[in-house]
Amino acid sequence: MKRNKHHSPEIRKQQILLASEIVLLKEGIESFTIDQVVFHAQIAKGTVYKYYKNKDHLFAELAVKSVEMLYQYFRTAVADIESPIQKLQSVIKSCYRFYHDYPQYYGLLNYFERKEVDAVQRGRYQKISFELQSFIEKIIDEGKAMGEISGKVPTQSIDYIIWSGTIGMIQFIESKKELIPDLKVINQEKLIHDFALIITSGLRI
Amino acid sequence: MKRNKHHSPEIRKQQILLASEIVLLKEGIESFTIDQVVFHAQIAKGTVYKYYKNKDHLFAELAVKSVEMLYQYFRTAVADIESPIQKLQSVIKSCYRFYHDYPQYYGLLNYFERKEVDAVQRGRYQKISFELQSFIEKIIDEGKAMGEISGKVPTQSIDYIIWSGTIGMIQFIESKKELIPDLKVINQEKLIHDFALIITSGLRI
Repeated sequence: MKRNKHHSPEIRKQQILLASEIVLLKEGIESFTIDQVVFHAQIAKGTVYKYYKNKDHLFAELAVKSVEMLYQYFRTAVADIESPIQKLQSVIKSCYRFYHDYPQYYGLLNYFERKEVDAVQRGRYQKISFELQSFIEKIIDEGKAMGEISGKVPTQSIDYIIWSGTIGMIQFIESKKELIPDLKVINQEKLIHDFALIITSGLRI
Repeated sequence: MKRNKHHSPEIRKQQILLASEIVLLKEGIESFTIDQVVFHAQIAKGTVYKYYKNKDHLFAELAVKSVEMLYQYFRTAVADIESPIQKLQSVIKSCYRFYHDYPQYYGLLNYFERKEVDAVQRGRYQKISFELQSFIEKIIDEGKAMGEISGKVPTQSIDYIIWSGTIGMIQFIESKKELIPDLKVINQEKLIHDFALIITSGLRI
């Protein structure tokens, strides 16, 4: 550990975060421990606690990274698409793809959305979440302006409905894949596709 | 406790279940203990364990009762409605109303849907859940037959989408009511109404 002695706080924090990601990927949220982070970062336990006061503080940082990754998925999803309705369909499907590609990061978002954490830890997470939210709301407003999406329901409500519905769908797939034997047959991607189709058709003028 | 000595197993089980409901209502799922059930049932601890091997076994019984209550809400919701689309809207809203009227029972359903419990405990719960499922699927099929609902998406998928979407919406309201200050302004019932409207419009031919 001596070799880390002269590293700057920024480098140390990065080390700790990268080690945390390794632990998250290997162990998941449930079995995540600071001790494992210490092991992977090859850094003194006291140093970890100097920057992150507990597990939730680390999770908060990782959750910020997760939202940033999801945001990247969203941006890629809408590239080269003209129609706002089709953009929303593509965003919904990319959310499922993110869950599929990075279940641990997706789980962290979910964990973080529910859990009571203190305001400071929530601050940065909330900031980037709001960016994501306005990204979607801009698409909805664009659809309203182009006469593709009905003006009857407020934009924010539509955003909440798309977001919550998508989370509900993914949760259903996640919780039911063991219980409902025919869910594999129905095909998860097809189910998300149909959900995206139904919910966006309901937005049309 | 002497006065319980000669009661039949059926009466005892009913006593234990009613006491469990009291504990659930008073304490919620998190703080539920068998000891409190023993206290409210005024029955020996060994007697409780004779019929219910653990907390999850009791929860399974209560979850069956919860689904039965929800089913009753659904049946009331569709009474006197002709249009299948409107029936579905009404069912979605009644699901929210059930959550609103009986948050502990609703929470138990959610708890039970996620948790890994053994097959015997799940058996009765699954049976009544399937009844609920076919209740909704009958409405969807009726809508398809009447030319109100598009035949493009399989009935079972529509059922899953409505169910998961509704759970996602209620979960959003539940988790966000503290975090999003304007959610009270937006009005929870209006949000569910808009969700019901959007998702069912998306089903139309």
